[in-house]
Amino acid sequence: MNILIVHAHPEPQSFCSAMKDLAVTTLEAAGHQVQLSDLYAMNWNPVAADSDFASRSDPDYLVYALEQRHAHNQQSLAADIQAELDKLLWADLLILNFPLYWCSVPAMLKGWIDRVLVSGACYGGLRFYDRGGLAGKRAMLSFTLGAQPHMFADEQAIHGELDLMLRPLQRGTLAYTGCTVLPPFAAYHVPYLDDAARQAILDDYRHHLLQLEQLTPLRFPRLAEFDKRLQPLSGEVSA
Amino acid sequence: MNILIVHAHPEPQSFCSAMKDLAVTTLEAAGHQVQLSDLYAMNWNPVAADSDFASRSDPDYLVYALEQRHAHNQQSLAADIQAELDKLLWADLLILNFPLYWCSVPAMLKGWIDRVLVSGACYGGLRFYDRGGLAGKRAMLSFTLGAQPHMFADEQAIHGELDLMLRPLQRGTLAYTGCTVLPPFAAYHVPYLDDAARQAILDDYRHHLLQLEQLTPLRFPRLAEFDKRLQPLSGEVSA
Repeated sequence: MNILIVHAHPEPQSFCSAMKDLAVTTLEAAGHQVQLSDLYAMNWNPVAADSDFASRSDPDYLVYALEQRHAHNQQSLAADIQAELDKLLWADLLILNFPLYWCSVPAMLKGWIDRVLVSGACYGGLRFYDRGGLAGKRAMLSFTLGAQPHMFADEQAIHGELDLMLRPLQRGTLAYTGCTVLPPFAAYHVPYLDDAARQAILDDYRHHLLQLEQLTPLRFPRLAEFDKRLQPLSGEVSA
Repeated sequence: MNILIVHAHPEPQSFCSAMKDLAVTTLEAAGHQVQLSDLYAMNWNPVAADSDFASRSDPDYLVYALEQRHAHNQQSLAADIQAELDKLLWADLLILNFPLYWCSVPAMLKGWIDRVLVSGACYGGLRFYDRGGLAGKRAMLSFTLGAQPHMFADEQAIHGELDLMLRPLQRGTLAYTGCTVLPPFAAYHVPYLDDAARQAILDDYRHHLLQLEQLTPLRFPRLAEFDKRLQPLSGEVSA
């Protein structure tokens, strides 16, 4: 497989960065091709702005997604965006590796999502969910957090079910663009763990990475379950 | 009331920006004090980084939340962060106004959350949810999106229930820091609407703003419902 790891952590010595390093070495040793976008190291610009478009379809009024589509068609996307989009289109598997900030990705990584998941290339019109522009690719979240597993165990837990907290990322972003979403790897309670416990998590993560092909993907809506207005065809629960 | 509106849209002429303008004028006319943080106009820096801390508690290894707490105690937060934190602590009501990007806030606004919701001031230790550092304040999301209401109507809808998609923001962020969260205002289908339909949304938004005091807040966990390990005390569903 071709694998793109997009990593965003402000401390290169962090445990999260060690997970990124482990993923690169483990997946390369398993025979995969790996590219890494280390957003802090790259000094990635996370701000979606008019300056992303050298030539605008409407120079007087910015609709970001429409200008993405226009620039993608004209092959005039900003160089930093195009470089990341090329890596993404090359990849069979996308791994987002990050510390959970406010139950989501850090702004640095959100800005990769905002700018690189370009309308026209990754979605657009009725190309979303199983018909999304990235259909055929797989994607996975890999993250560190301070909380313990029981705090995200189910809807009675203090923060509710982990998968519901991850919905905007796993469903609203990765599944929306067509990716098959693999179960996430959550490294719980990291700031409070000793070295032995941290090593145990790295061992678990290595195991997770080596069995990616065997993991059962998460289930998300398929457009065939909805009518032309995107109303559900039946009462069945989709995800 | 003292009201802080944090706005993030890359197009000053956008409908989302018109909502921000309407909120300022409507709330001021109703007798409130309003401050506005227009993040694109301010050229806000959304990247949480070591440069946010002039003097570090640990100069060799960055734990962002720990350095926030240290800098807050030492009153040495970066000037742009301190200025926003001062506005937040002044406010009785926080309104986040934005276009929904990937079922969440744009990176620009995520970076306001990452950097300004400072550990030590807004949360920390067992100060979260109803015991959060911002307890006593109210908060509300106000956003534009392309989708139509039936696409977020309930769990059978193509994107599931709106409140679940907003969980990281409303529960994981606003409620977590102690804010009482008011029902959001969602401006649906905006890119596809004519001027009359847009004006109708602005009229609805004005009505929403003028009845803020009457809105029933959303319900979130209270720490008294959990034991010292943050396990639920009973089987009751909290939110």
